[in-house]
This record gives sequence, structure tokens and C-alpha cells, in this order.
Amino acid sequence: MEVTRTNFKDSLNTVYSAIEEADFLAIDGEFSGISDGPNVSALTNGLDTPEERYMKLKKHSMDFLLFQFGLCTFTYDQAESKYVIKTFNFYIFPKPFNRTSPDTKFICQSSSIDFLASQGFDFNKVFRHGIPYLNQEEEVQLREQYEERRSQSNGSGNPSYISPNSNKGPGSIPEEHREYIGRKERYIQISKVDDEERKRRERQKQEREQVTFRWDSSLFPLSPTQGKLVVGHNMLLDVMHTIHQFYCVLPEYFLYCFLRLLDTKLMATTQPFKELINITSLAELQKQLKESPFKSPKVVTAEGFPSYDTAQEQLHEAGYDAYITGLCFISMANYLGTTIYTRYNATLTSHVFARLFLMRIIDIPYLNISGPDLQPKRDHVLYVTFPKEWKTSDLYQLFSAFGNIQVSWIDDTSAFVSLSQTDQVQIAINTSRYAESYRIQTYAEYVQGRQQVRESQGHSTQSWDEDGWVKPHYTSPSTVGAGPTGYSYGHSRYRPLT
Amino acid sequence: MEVTRTNFKDSLNTVYSAIEEADFLAIDGEFSGISDGPNVSALTNGLDTPEERYMKLKKHSMDFLLFQFGLCTFTYDQAESKYVIKTFNFYIFPKPFNRTSPDTKFICQSSSIDFLASQGFDFNKVFRHGIPYLNQEEEVQLREQYEERRSQSNGSGNPSYISPNSNKGPGSIPEEHREYIGRKERYIQISKVDDEERKRRERQKQEREQVTFRWDSSLFPLSPTQGKLVVGHNMLLDVMHTIHQFYCVLPEYFLYCFLRLLDTKLMATTQPFKELINITSLAELQKQLKESPFKSPKVVTAEGFPSYDTAQEQLHEAGYDAYITGLCFISMANYLGTTIYTRYNATLTSHVFARLFLMRIIDIPYLNISGPDLQPKRDHVLYVTFPKEWKTSDLYQLFSAFGNIQVSWIDDTSAFVSLSQTDQVQIAINTSRYAESYRIQTYAEYVQGRQQVRESQGHSTQSWDEDGWVKPHYTSPSTVGAGPTGYSYGHSRYRPLT
Repeated sequence: MEVTRTNFKDSLNTVYSAIEEADFLAIDGEFSGISDGPNVSALTNGLDTPEERYMKLKKHSMDFLLFQFGLCTFTYDQAESKYVIKTFNFYIFPKPFNRTSPDTKFICQSSSIDFLASQGFDFNKVFRHGIPYLNQEEEVQLREQYEERRSQSNGSGNPSYISPNSNKGPGSIPEEHREYIGRKERYIQISKVDDEERKRRERQKQEREQVTFRWDSSLFPLSPTQGKLVVGHNMLLDVMHTIHQFYCVLPEYFLYCFLRLLDTKLMATTQPFKELINITSLAELQKQLKESPFKSPKVVTAEGFPSYDTAQEQLHEAGYDAYITGLCFISMANYLGTTIYTRYNATLTSHVFARLFLMRIIDIPYLNISGPDLQPKRDHVLYVTFPKEWKTSDLYQLFSAFGNIQVSWIDDTSAFVSLSQTDQVQIAINTSRYAESYRIQTYAEYVQGRQQVRESQGHSTQSWDEDGWVKPHYTSPSTVGAGPTGYSYGHSRYRPLT
Repeated sequence: MEVTRTNFKDSLNTVYSAIEEADFLAIDGEFSGISDGPNVSALTNGLDTPEERYMKLKKHSMDFLLFQFGLCTFTYDQAESKYVIKTFNFYIFPKPFNRTSPDTKFICQSSSIDFLASQGFDFNKVFRHGIPYLNQEEEVQLREQYEERRSQSNGSGNPSYISPNSNKGPGSIPEEHREYIGRKERYIQISKVDDEERKRRERQKQEREQVTFRWDSSLFPLSPTQGKLVVGHNMLLDVMHTIHQFYCVLPEYFLYCFLRLLDTKLMATTQPFKELINITSLAELQKQLKESPFKSPKVVTAEGFPSYDTAQEQLHEAGYDAYITGLCFISMANYLGTTIYTRYNATLTSHVFARLFLMRIIDIPYLNISGPDLQPKRDHVLYVTFPKEWKTSDLYQLFSAFGNIQVSWIDDTSAFVSLSQTDQVQIAINTSRYAESYRIQTYAEYVQGRQQVRESQGHSTQSWDEDGWVKPHYTSPSTVGAGPTGYSYGHSRYRPLT
């Protein structure tokens, strides 16, 4: 079902009840771009910590617009052993509410736009009929502004000293603006309005604004109070954008916030699926989950909702992608011998619950939103700084005596170099002692240096525990009960809140 | 006629010959936004100098996309005393040419997008079928890259030390990127290609690239070598965007560059039209120019071109706006007793030729691209700095003893205050001597202060001449021959190159 600002108000009850009755929800978003950073290799360094990756995405990806939000609700029909689905495609656009509300600017990245265009994405629908939104803070600001104007127009304001030629009055700003865009000057229409009529218009206006105001908190399926399981595929950016646009300014680093998330990409790359599934892109995953040993679930579209034909792929429509994500989740969950409606199944939760897949990080598979992140020892990793003329080939040459290496660029003048053998680390450092053009540190020295900077800025400290994982100094709500060790890197001693 | 990347190649000859045969051209652009600055009042201070305004637009407006370029060619048919027009709407989008070419990012401003959407603007056509472009520098870069790759693939490259895991190789970057957008991993298809086949593919690729490469210089109707009169309405931003996207990085400040420009908004606000025309927005201007004492010109659409019905307004389609602009120009030129095909008519040129309308500057009507800008004395203007809590009302209170004032905000802590009487200036300054919270300077002191900063940065110096205009110290190509003094502010002693 398509939801635009034309039918948004009328659709709300349908959306609410679909969420209310669902056993779980699947979501997906389409954005106007991915990275506004200098380059993608800097954005996704293979040795990023989860926090670093999060901070990079926060800094370089949030100025893009999430303009299509897909939601697919899955409800299990026990009698018929099938799932009933309802799919929604919300078109989103920050149409300014009025002349004093924020005039949002967003970035478009040509490659992303071109990709969506090639998939037949309907930009006209977004820009002409997209649902406006505000995050909580903006909503409060706009309400305050509105109340202030209202009290002023009731006679309690202070209109003295306001010059008609002043440029600072809020009323004059969009006027100048308009002229650039429209080249069609506005007229000021003066008409007498009696008190009754004025009140009526105000009420109308308030009602109109109410509708659009409420997109965020009440509808928002990621809200921690909702309690439904929310599934997504490679969903870190989807979650970040959703919080950023509709909920609040992204926190420095989110922990214990949104627990009921499950990332199917992480699930597919984790035991036991790791051995069974080769390619974990959404389309490929779905194909593989149709074959043995997996089984496609029985799914029907709820009456009155448009149905998708999975034979005719409609990938990259957010609602369709959410739907496919839900299918993949069910197939994998069924393989584990769980049925979805027994929601907080231990196997599921300890595996992948509340953990978001991290792309292209060598040794940390996920960002943990229900507890401290995994932090593997990186004893074989060196931090190298060098002149900006250096290329990957220079690093290979430099380390040619130390066997196979792996280079993870940080910026133009630094990189992590992973040696294949840890015992070579000290030799490499000794060799470099008298070098002038470059400098080598162990990973531990590098972390310590950064830690000192962070501590001077008031952040918490961390220490290594006996298992080789960093033990942060904050209280975990639950530190008992280890799940099955599905990861080749060791296991987390934390499990999510239930 | 709509020109997209689908029919671009086939349309080129039609476009060329339309330009070639035309007596003059009218242009218009539609953008994804106007101002990325902090606010519009800072962008358009009423006491900006033309250079300041230009610099502000350069800084705050060039990250938007010019995505529709309208061109209307006007050819006079003497036998029939009518104009034959050909209208083109070019849809423009920076679709990346290949994986190593620039992945352009551009900003969208919600109010601008919303405005165009409300006018029925077709964004799908832009993003799906827009013509890609490069400016000259980008074109050279891409060609060099291309040649380099070609010579490498011929065996002269240096493929050693390139690790498949390296993040810095150009090939790996868009791959990572894609994954975010598409979640559909790419396959690498390995196939044996014989030498003949390889050459054939390369030729194909080159041909394909040639088409898109050439949008800029050869087609570009603003090129100084073209020699046609180019008309626009309030065209400063159109000209800046066109240069920026299709030609070159905008110069620090453009002078003597593009001489054959005529701004109908400036024309309409200049004598003798100033007294005859109330509102100079394009739509209103056109309406007024249909009435006495003006006459609508006789215009027909060339065969094979879609015709516009001026009764059914299609404003804000770039081609239509260009067409209307041309009509307005002809009506005004006819009123002056000139016919367009006597191109370099003295009356026309000295009035408005090569001068671009400046919005909302109190005492300078235009930016002069064929010589030094007008720089009126501003003896009655004070430069005031104050705490950032101050509002317009505080300034009115402060100057309440000096009669009527006009406030032009510069930023949060400074503004120009124009007094109605120049003899009050010294009194105001004397009064402020012992003030602690604010500070007052004369405009001359303010300019001098900025001048010293500029000189220390190596810019040219200027001095006041006896007429009250600043006389810049660069050589004007022609300083003889004053035009009629149409401006209430005095007149320029410079006329454009002819």
C-alpha cells in the first residue's frame, strides 16, 4: 500500500492496526545517497571499531534523505500455518510546513540517484506527495514558535520598532527567497477578519499541522516502547536514518536503545548459515533460501493490500525489500527450528538479536546495540604513518620481508598493516626504528594514544580482560548466560535485555 | 522540444542550426535550490557591492544543481515581420560516466523542490534521462584517466604490488558503495576477449563517451566566441550556474567575460520602463507588455517544434520561461524604436547590455560584466557592531534620535544603518564614543578596513573619483561615451565592448 501525504491521515489507522496485530515487522529504506565523505575506503576501513564506523556514518551519511520507508508486517495464522502480510511504502519529503519552519536541505549523490532511477524509482511521487516529518526537537520548536505567534496575534506581543524594511523579520525572508525561485512577486492581501473567522482558521491550521506533526513517535516502529521484533537486511544505515529523521538527533553512540532489531545479513553470515549460504545480498539470499535445506514459508497478502509476485523482482522498492527480508528471516528461523511467534527464543536472541551487521570489517561482524561491542585483540596489526605520496605498492614493498600483509587505509598518510604472523611485529618495529620517512606503532600503542586523547575529553576508559576482549567500565544490565559460540572470533559474554 | 540523453545525440544538429540562424537567444534555468547559506538576509544584504553579492552566490548557491536548461531561439522573418521561435528544454543530470569519473553530489532545498513539484515539474525525467555533463577541467581529467587506463591495458602499466584486498585501488571503491545501495553483490564475469573484440569494445566505449563529453563548450550558447545576444530574466544565477556546471570553475569575479547578455528584469526596472511597469516578475511583466503603450510581437513556432499557448501559462518550465523572456525583450526593444536584428543598437547597449540585475540592493541596480561596477557614495551609511542578542528593534531604539533609518543586517553582530540625513552621521558617531556594548564606524572607515585586509591579500586598490564613484585601478577597454542617464543614482562612464 502506498502512503503519501494525500492519503496519510486516512491510512494511519490501517498502519497502526497492522503493526498492532503483527508478530514481527520488516523494514527497509531508500536514500538519496550513501557517503558524503572523501571516499568510501575511508568510510569503511576494514579495522574500524563498531563505534568508529557508527561515528563515520553519522558524520558522512546523515545529510542524505531517507525518502522511501518500507514496512511489511507479518502475522502468523496458526490455524492455517501461514503468514499474512501487509506492505506499506511511505513516501517521505520534508515539505516545509510554513514560512518559519525549517527549510531542510539534503544531499543527492548522483550514483545513488542514477541507480534508483534505473530501477524505475518514482521521484515525482516523493517530491510531489511525500509525507513531511519532524523529529521530536523540531516539533517542539515549531510548536513553540506557533504558540508565540498566536499569543502575539492575540495582542500580547510587542510589535514596536519593527521596520517594514528590516531584513531580520522572519516574515520577509522567504519573500526574498521566493523571488529567486519564482520570479513572481507575492501580493499581500489585506482583508478584515472577524474574531470568529480568525479562530476558525486557526483551528483549521492546527488540525492540519497535527496530522503531519505526528509521523514520528506514535507511528515509529523502532521506538523502544513498541516491543515488536523489527527485521532488516544490512540495516545499520536504515536504523540510523530512521532515528535521525523521525526521532531525535543521533546519540554519540547508541547502546541499549533499540533492542528488538534483527539483521538478516548478520544472521546469514553467522553459524550455522555461514556454511550454507554463499552470497548474502538480499536478492541472492532469497534465492538460496528457496532451495534445500531451507523451505519457503507460506505467505499470503492480507485482503485489500496489493500483493507482490516474487518471480517478478521489484527490488529496491522499500516495501518489497522489507517483504523479502521478512521471508528470509522466516526461512532461517524455521531452519533453526523456531517459529516466530515464540518471540524471544533463546537461540535466536543469543545469535543475532539486537546486533547490526557491519560491512567490510575484517574481524568484528556486528555492532552490538544491547551491550558492549566485541573488541578483538589486534596483536598482528601495525599502525603506519608515511608521506602522502605513498601508494599501496609502497607498503607492500616496505613489508616485503614479512610475508603476506593486508593493508587497510585510514587516510592519505596512514594505514593499518596486518601481518600474517604476530611474531613478526616486533621485528618490523625494530627495523623501522631509524626510518625517517615513515613510522610504525603497534595497534595497542595506537589505541592507547587515541584513548589518552579521549580521556582528556572525558570519555570512559577500557581495559583488556583475560579472554582478549576489551572490558568496558560500564555496567551491563545482564552479564550472565553465554549463547552458543557461533563466531570464529570468540564470543560475547553479554546477552540482550529481554 | 525536449532534449534528454536518449535523443541528445540526434538533436545536436537541430540545436546547432537553431542557434546559428537565430537573431538572439533567450535562456532560463531551473535549480534544485537557491541558498545554502545561513539565511537569505545574509545572502542579500541591501548594501552588498556587486562583487560581494557575486561572491556570496558563488559560495552559497553553486552546490545546487541546474537540472533544466531552457533555450528559445528567435529568428526575425523580415518579409512577414514576425519572429520564428524554436524552444528547447534540456534535462540535465550528472550521471557518472563510469566508475572512476566524478560521483557528483548536489544539494536539494526542500522549498525549491516543493515549489517546482507544485508546478508539475518532472523530476523523473531529470534523474532517469538527464544529459550528463562535465566542465572543461573535468573533461580533461577524465580523458587523461582514460588514456592512462588504455595505455596500462596495452601492457605498459605497472600492475605489481597491487593486492586484491587493498582498499585504495580505484576499482574496489564503487563495489563497496554499490553494496550499500543495492545489497546485491556484483559478480566478476571473466571471459576471454580476443584482440579484435577488445578494440571493438574500446571504440564503442569511446564513441559513447564522445557524445556526452561535448555538452559544454561546443553547444554552450554563453560562450564569448558565439557572438549572439543572450537574453534572460533576472539571469545572474542562471549565468553563474551555467558557467559553473558546463564551462569552468567560476572566476573570483567575472568581468569582460560574457558580454552579449541582456537582463530583461534590469531593462524593465530602468528608464523609460521604470515609470511604465509596476511589477517586474516575469509573469507580471509579460502581462503588462501586452497592454498599451506596448505591443505583443508577432511570433510563430517553427515547424516541427511544439508550440506554447501563452494563455495557458506553463511558467517554471525553463523553455517556456525563456520563451516569455524573449517576448518581453522584443516588446521593450520595439517600444524603444529598435528592431532586434539591428543588433548592437546604441540605446539598448548603453542601457542594459552586459549588465545583470541585482536583487534587493538599495543603490546599485546591476552587476556590470563589461566594466567596473557602479559604487555609490554611502556617506549616510553607518557600520554598527553589537552583541548578538540585539534585534532590529534595538537598533531602532539606539538611533531613535536620528529620524528614519534603514537597517541592513550583515550577520548576527553587525549591520549597516542608513540615516535619512547625512549630517547626522558625525553626531551619531560622537554620541557612540563612550558606548561599550556597541561600536559605530562610517561606511568609508568600514570599506577602508576591509580594503586593508584585501590589500594584504594582494588585491587591487581603488580610490574615490570626483563624481562620487569609486574608480578602480584597472584599465577599462573603453571609457569614452556615456549612455543616457537612466539611473537615479548617477551614471556609469563606461560602456561595453562592441
